[in-house]
Amino acid sequence: MNIANQRIVYLNGEYVPESEARVPIKDQGFKYGDAVFDTTRTFGHKIFKLRAHLERFERSLRYLKLDPGLSIDAFTSITEEVVRRNLPLIGGDDDYWVTQRVSRGLSDGDREAWPEWPDATVIVECAPLPLAARAKSYRDGIEVITPSVRRVAPEMASPRAKTHNYLNLILGDLEVAAQNPNALSILLDRDGNLAEGKGSNIFLVAEGRLKTPRERYVLPGVSRQVTKEVAIGLGLEVEETDIDLFDAYNADEAFITSTSFCICPIRSINGRAMAADSIPGPITKQLIDGYVKLVGFDWYAQYLSRL
Amino acid sequence: MNIANQRIVYLNGEYVPESEARVPIKDQGFKYGDAVFDTTRTFGHKIFKLRAHLERFERSLRYLKLDPGLSIDAFTSITEEVVRRNLPLIGGDDDYWVTQRVSRGLSDGDREAWPEWPDATVIVECAPLPLAARAKSYRDGIEVITPSVRRVAPEMASPRAKTHNYLNLILGDLEVAAQNPNALSILLDRDGNLAEGKGSNIFLVAEGRLKTPRERYVLPGVSRQVTKEVAIGLGLEVEETDIDLFDAYNADEAFITSTSFCICPIRSINGRAMAADSIPGPITKQLIDGYVKLVGFDWYAQYLSRL
Amino acid sequence: MNIANQRIVYLNGEYVPESEARVPIKDQGFKYGDAVFDTTRTFGHKIFKLRAHLERFERSLRYLKLDPGLSIDAFTSITEEVVRRNLPLIGGDDDYWVTQRVSRGLSDGDREAWPEWPDATVIVECAPLPLAARAKSYRDGIEVITPSVRRVAPEMASPRAKTHNYLNLILGDLEVAAQNPNALSILLDRDGNLAEGKGSNIFLVAEGRLKTPRERYVLPGVSRQVTKEVAIGLGLEVEETDIDLFDAYNADEAFITSTSFCICPIRSINGRAMAADSIPGPITKQLIDGYVKLVGFDWYAQYLSRL
Amino acid sequence: MNIANQRIVYLNGEYVPESEARVPIKDQGFKYGDAVFDTTRTFGHKIFKLRAHLERFERSLRYLKLDPGLSIDAFTSITEEVVRRNLPLIGGDDDYWVTQRVSRGLSDGDREAWPEWPDATVIVECAPLPLAARAKSYRDGIEVITPSVRRVAPEMASPRAKTHNYLNLILGDLEVAAQNPNALSILLDRDGNLAEGKGSNIFLVAEGRLKTPRERYVLPGVSRQVTKEVAIGLGLEVEETDIDLFDAYNADEAFITSTSFCICPIRSINGRAMAADSIPGPITKQLIDGYVKLVGFDWYAQYLSRL
Amino acid sequence: MNIANQRIVYLNGEYVPESEARVPIKDQGFKYGDAVFDTTRTFGHKIFKLRAHLERFERSLRYLKLDPGLSIDAFTSITEEVVRRNLPLIGGDDDYWVTQRVSRGLSDGDREAWPEWPDATVIVECAPLPLAARAKSYRDGIEVITPSVRRVAPEMASPRAKTHNYLNLILGDLEVAAQNPNALSILLDRDGNLAEGKGSNIFLVAEGRLKTPRERYVLPGVSRQVTKEVAIGLGLEVEETDIDLFDAYNADEAFITSTSFCICPIRSINGRAMAADSIPGPITKQLIDGYVKLVGFDWYAQYLSRL
Amino acid sequence: MNIANQRIVYLNGEYVPESEARVPIKDQGFKYGDAVFDTTRTFGHKIFKLRAHLERFERSLRYLKLDPGLSIDAFTSITEEVVRRNLPLIGGDDDYWVTQRVSRGLSDGDREAWPEWPDATVIVECAPLPLAARAKSYRDGIEVITPSVRRVAPEMASPRAKTHNYLNLILGDLEVAAQNPNALSILLDRDGNLAEGKGSNIFLVAEGRLKTPRERYVLPGVSRQVTKEVAIGLGLEVEETDIDLFDAYNADEAFITSTSFCICPIRSINGRAMAADSIPGPITKQLIDGYVKLVGFDWYAQYLSRL
Repeated sequence: MNIANQRIVYLNGEYVPESEARVPIKDQGFKYGDAVFDTTRTFGHKIFKLRAHLERFERSLRYLKLDPGLSIDAFTSITEEVVRRNLPLIGGDDDYWVTQRVSRGLSDGDREAWPEWPDATVIVECAPLPLAARAKSYRDGIEVITPSVRRVAPEMASPRAKTHNYLNLILGDLEVAAQNPNALSILLDRDGNLAEGKGSNIFLVAEGRLKTPRERYVLPGVSRQVTKEVAIGLGLEVEETDIDLFDAYNADEAFITSTSFCICPIRSINGRAMAADSIPGPITKQLIDGYVKLVGFDWYAQYLSRL
Repeated sequence: MNIANQRIVYLNGEYVPESEARVPIKDQGFKYGDAVFDTTRTFGHKIFKLRAHLERFERSLRYLKLDPGLSIDAFTSITEEVVRRNLPLIGGDDDYWVTQRVSRGLSDGDREAWPEWPDATVIVECAPLPLAARAKSYRDGIEVITPSVRRVAPEMASPRAKTHNYLNLILGDLEVAAQNPNALSILLDRDGNLAEGKGSNIFLVAEGRLKTPRERYVLPGVSRQVTKEVAIGLGLEVEETDIDLFDAYNADEAFITSTSFCICPIRSINGRAMAADSIPGPITKQLIDGYVKLVGFDWYAQYLSRL
Repeated sequence: MNIANQRIVYLNGEYVPESEARVPIKDQGFKYGDAVFDTTRTFGHKIFKLRAHLERFERSLRYLKLDPGLSIDAFTSITEEVVRRNLPLIGGDDDYWVTQRVSRGLSDGDREAWPEWPDATVIVECAPLPLAARAKSYRDGIEVITPSVRRVAPEMASPRAKTHNYLNLILGDLEVAAQNPNALSILLDRDGNLAEGKGSNIFLVAEGRLKTPRERYVLPGVSRQVTKEVAIGLGLEVEETDIDLFDAYNADEAFITSTSFCICPIRSINGRAMAADSIPGPITKQLIDGYVKLVGFDWYAQYLSRL
Repeated sequence: MNIANQRIVYLNGEYVPESEARVPIKDQGFKYGDAVFDTTRTFGHKIFKLRAHLERFERSLRYLKLDPGLSIDAFTSITEEVVRRNLPLIGGDDDYWVTQRVSRGLSDGDREAWPEWPDATVIVECAPLPLAARAKSYRDGIEVITPSVRRVAPEMASPRAKTHNYLNLILGDLEVAAQNPNALSILLDRDGNLAEGKGSNIFLVAEGRLKTPRERYVLPGVSRQVTKEVAIGLGLEVEETDIDLFDAYNADEAFITSTSFCICPIRSINGRAMAADSIPGPITKQLIDGYVKLVGFDWYAQYLSRL
Repeated sequence: MNIANQRIVYLNGEYVPESEARVPIKDQGFKYGDAVFDTTRTFGHKIFKLRAHLERFERSLRYLKLDPGLSIDAFTSITEEVVRRNLPLIGGDDDYWVTQRVSRGLSDGDREAWPEWPDATVIVECAPLPLAARAKSYRDGIEVITPSVRRVAPEMASPRAKTHNYLNLILGDLEVAAQNPNALSILLDRDGNLAEGKGSNIFLVAEGRLKTPRERYVLPGVSRQVTKEVAIGLGLEVEETDIDLFDAYNADEAFITSTSFCICPIRSINGRAMAADSIPGPITKQLIDGYVKLVGFDWYAQYLSRL
Repeated sequence: MNIANQRIVYLNGEYVPESEARVPIKDQGFKYGDAVFDTTRTFGHKIFKLRAHLERFERSLRYLKLDPGLSIDAFTSITEEVVRRNLPLIGGDDDYWVTQRVSRGLSDGDREAWPEWPDATVIVECAPLPLAARAKSYRDGIEVITPSVRRVAPEMASPRAKTHNYLNLILGDLEVAAQNPNALSILLDRDGNLAEGKGSNIFLVAEGRLKTPRERYVLPGVSRQVTKEVAIGLGLEVEETDIDLFDAYNADEAFITSTSFCICPIRSINGRAMAADSIPGPITKQLIDGYVKLVGFDWYAQYLSRL
């Protein structure tokens, strides 16, 4: 890929071609995963809920005492600029993830070779959404498997912070992928309740009501929040509560939410097909429709069009 | 620093100046801390226990299903070469840390801007030991504080793998540094037993016997192993067992072990001075002497000479 | 101190000078901490919420199957009499703690030397509030540290009973005082949620809402209850829920409540300053004002006047 | 009881009649159970294993950062003096418990009425052993019941320190006594293993081997230690390990150890009679005989003589 | 009993005399308890809430992936038929339990001797209610004891499924029956909260409000649900929440609910009498009256008439 | 199958054809899984280690307070008789499982239709080993998967008793079978250590040493014991200890043991192939050979001959 066609990345104050966006091997974001990030997406080339994402980003930063030296407003401008510069590189019917990252940069002892490197590494970058690769999940539903590894407990490191420490989730993915490369890993928390996957929240639907794990044990997804609001708008009850495999195997419907997936139906959990006859189930479909309407962009059709 | 004076780093098959040793911002080692490492040190410019470190490195790699495409023998040669190339840059009485790192490189979706980047990022690098900064700890002993955050449990991610996911340990450090910037954080495990700090194991000495936490909850330090062997050689009993704050407050002596520290005496735990009258206590001193003898290099004098 | 100037204590049916208020060394309250107590305070020399305190006292007594042989009404009269007798000893702008205590007295085997001692030891006593010593906390806010020791779990002994067994809390205090003698220890519960300190509840304020730990894990403070009522009166939402260090580090404001402190602002938790610009933060200030109004006495001014 | 016939107690430097041995109601040993103690006994009027008890006492003191201002040697002399003064009060075939206690005395704020009271309250006292009351237990064996309340976990307060905080054990006693006033409560630890009762350790005998809970979860009884030594002397294997109700219900024999009981056979655990045909079982009897021999005094006959 | 007088049982498609209702010793319901059931009762010979029971039955079946090959409607008809056929065998003032059971039948390897046995064993049977045996409990209240064994945790097997695996509950019963054959065992969950007994839920009444354990840890009893509805109809608050022994010892009233007991007052918990003066307490009595009214049959009088 | 060709089962004192070996639907072994069993096998038509199995059987019986009314000697005779009667039904190169079962029979309330049924149901039965179905596992190794469901904890029901309550293990099997019908489920215990599968123990081999889970969390298999003895005979170290997935992914070899499998190699754990090049690995092969020799029968060849 020649540089002219490359995406542009914001790195420590400059806009550089992606291939030049590198961090020193001694950056603490690399050595320790000592960094946080947040990701939103565009719908029809417009950024969605950037403020909500940046406020969550700020909570992750505070939890780890990371100071990027930039305000939310500054991140807003940079994010918009990064998207603006990169939009020409994708088609009109494609969309972007856009991500802010802050690491603790170089420690004093590691600074010698990079004397100018700032105290915090700040990155804003974007990537095209893998629409085609996911289209099938919307048609058939995702197969969910709960691996044996448990989600890291809040007294060790809060799952509410979105950080560069993903090995716990990756260990879950490795277990699941070995059995079924198409399946999605959803870890249980230390008490055996459903928690979350690498970047996705889970909802169950039973007797017309929605249930999703308590925030204390998961990343409080912005899409999870949007889904709750859509559900309430539709007159559905939504409960944040402990849910376990008994709930899962008895749910009528289930789905995941994430920034990029928005809402994607689940076909089965540990091989048990959901009770509803269709994919998506009737309530999931209502929520998808409500979500599409709220966003003002038919991302569901966008995904399905890539089949 | 001009390039001629820079340390040389092995990166993906090449030897490059440290300032050019960078990883793409989408390297999974950076995004997720999806990487492992191991570190040994030189004593009088000679690498110590490289094989033991590389065998542990291999266990970390296997645990995370990371394949560097290089054998232990290959890593041995590269490590020796990295040290050889960098020795001219330090004084005769200085020494190096030397570190191997392997990350999962770029995922397929992130490869566009770096099409040549290999499947696994492989790094071997070195850094001078901060001898002067630590000299005081050998004279006065280290102050240890146990933070409230608990060490990640093995059912979530095994502490036995040495990975790039350090946030749990960093959360402990942040708690401790806020109270006392000179103190060392030693986390308790989920059952409230002493576990480990960021890169250090802990030993207690009571009634002439050594106790150190069980391997299941900590990184099995090579220096921890060397210390055990030295102790046994001295006719001391060593037990790997659950130890807690009752043991800590009643210990006669205590010390940490790490690759770079070897053995460094602890002055106090949560402000409770160890019972022994001297720093180091008599048994700790015996162990230091035995360790020095085993290594064939007086690292203890080396540290103290920087006071 | 001559006897004429001494405070009067109610002890097993008699009003005696404090220096004569002693218990046998074999009293089970001394040997085992087998006793419960409750404490209220005066505001402008008037006792506050005595009934609520005595009802809680009764729950502690029932939990431990302790029978003082006195009704709540009898404790009310005695308490009032103790205060009445002691008020002449303090200035008009000072106030009292007043405390009821019941221990299991002497076991049959230990009764020989004190044949008349009753089955339960009953004490009502008072002590002047340390207003001056605390004034600075109202101006600057309290520094909170979470020690590594965990609060005793309800399946072992319920934190809801106010008993003479304080060693778990004292172990927390010892950890914290060793780092910072001015700081307040707030223990985490066994799941890593914020629990309580020795005699104080904690509240966080975030997005205009109050959160405080669930009753199951803490003493249900009367001041905690008053604060909740004041908050609701101000139109603020109050939630009893699991809160952890992620919440703490992201809170806008925080404060403790206790019988004597009423509401006292927190400056920092584990060295992380609260986000609000002022001490107390705006909502904490509203609550203090509301609390003052509800009590009908400006205890906040009383504290600050001692600076 | 007139003063001339009273036992003498050492209290803060003086030898006083027991009826005058009282502590201020504000002593922290009374208010918080903030105190530790240790107890040994006489056999035929001779104190047993005083040094071992005082060393354990010192560990309890250190754990709670209590400083009595007296050395072990000083406690030894005082203890011997207390026994010497009190021996004339009991018959030649009776014996004493003798107990050291240290509390944190008065806090500065509570000192006004007792200005001379020392920083630490120091007590040494003795009490006649209840030989007659226990004789039946030796003949018939003790009935053991495991209550539902769990032993306080080491991460909250170590069971290894012998303190004045007994409410957790008392809650167990209350459950058990309500069902069977003659039964002994042995609490399970938080993992459901057998732990200990109020002042007693438990041993199981199965296939000729002894098992007793790990020290981390119980007070390391001096009699427990003596029993282990006697057992080893008899060629029996002894294991400190996790033991649970499966072990208990399948044990051939079981017994408790304590300072005063030495070794007392268990008849049943939760109503399940031990498998052995006799009380005590054959191995328990061997151990009793060995213990008697080691002590040089037939305490077993002493107990049984009171039937 | 001659066959003509025997109850009729539905077994795998046929109506057979009870004495012929047997399952192969290799039925997985026998070998593994690999089966689920549900039970309702008649009131005045009419089946109560059959649909609610069969829906719960279906959730148990789904949880264990058991397929009876029969719809809820089919089970309804069979259940009605079984009751119809058996009613002539009891008096007009007696009533029945009626129970559906489905086991996993024979595995392929075990089918040889019973080649016709279906894939799932399906049973519907009834049994007369032991009215006389229970009458005393209504007059005097039930004594409840919490054994030391903990209820199986949801991450191991959900208590919400009503299965043929009762050993955990039976271990509780054995502990309790050894102390008091008339007492009812209510197990605590793994966190020490009150959970449930073998077939009964527990409610506490305090300050006019009802509390009962959260569904996640117990079988969600149909009678528990009916009681909640009756309570709400009476204007009482009902909370599903964690409740522990502190709540129990401080409750004014307590009662159990079950299909056959409906509501039965508790006299004491671990020997602690409930605070209310009467059995049943005033609110329990209101609930009983409301339950009788809702059912349209005075089961309370029916029980008491057998005294 | 006509009755003449059927296997004979011992049932409550009689030898009956298997098709007539049935239990009442109200047998507590069926209703509650309130029963225990044990299983041994024949090698070349000879029963192996019957005494060890019956002693374990007795421990299961005692744990659940089940009284079969028969001694071990009686069970020995019956077992031998059952095998003797059934041997003619299998080929000379086939072998049997032979199983003893005792349930709690009928409760008094359920006895009406079966008035003669004894207090305990006693069964001894046999079944041919599925040699052909398993042959492939010996050649290729077993694929092991750890499901997300955790093994029941000892404080709920001890895994050391071999009972008719298998749902916890079956829930694990259902998770695993949905992913890979050929894989074997090995559950983790509540702390995330490897525990056991439905009827099989697991061993890992690393650095020439064997590790297997501690008895407290698993059924102490007789074959597990035999394997330990064979290993020790071969000069190998064997450790009973906590082992987790870090150990599993780094093991050189792994295998399961069970009565029927004896020793069967594991090919992979969660899709991670064992490090050794061959199936079975060299040490596993040594152990198989030693096991064959100890038994005096080449069961390994017997299995492989069915390929």
